[in-house]
Amino acid sequence: MAENAVFVGNKPVMNYVLAVLTQFNSGATEVAIKARGKAISRAVDVAEIVRKRFLPDVDVKDIKISTEQVSGEQGTANVSAIEIVLYRK
Amino acid sequence: MAENAVFVGNKPVMNYVLAVLTQFNSGATEVAIKARGKAISRAVDVAEIVRKRFLPDVDVKDIKISTEQVSGEQGTANVSAIEIVLYRK
Repeated sequence: MAENAVFVGNKPVMNYVLAVLTQFNSGATEVAIKARGKAISRAVDVAEIVRKRFLPDVDVKDIKISTEQVSGEQGTANVSAIEIVLYRK
Repeated sequence: MAENAVFVGNKPVMNYVLAVLTQFNSGATEVAIKARGKAISRAVDVAEIVRKRFLPDVDVKDIKISTEQVSGEQGTANVSAIEIVLYRK
């Protein structure tokens, strides 16, 4: 099964909430919310808003944190990442 | 058993890393890293730095996200929170 994922960046929180809602409303049973660096806080906001305000039958299945290596102009840097998997009960 | 917790705020990441290391070195088998709002990203950094750079025998036991109500001058606001529990294997 193809994984449904939403990558959270610097846009307003509601953009990503809408993206998650759209995936669930298209029949997805699981949606992964992914983010790196400072966007991690926003990813948690997205997950909380989806399940508390819009889809009470959606809950957190799993949360993973990791470290990713990002190559930039000044060499390689380590950046933290999060993946929050939501599922429809 | 008293819970060992480190609350992550706006100070430099290494302050909190040191606090977690100190608790493990004092004999704690579990340390909970807690944060709210924008500090959530920093809490993930703290957990990743502790286990990847300093204590390879420490791993993530559990991660919880929640919504807390914070009362301020302009009424009550919802803020996301995270709790990352690290344990010594």
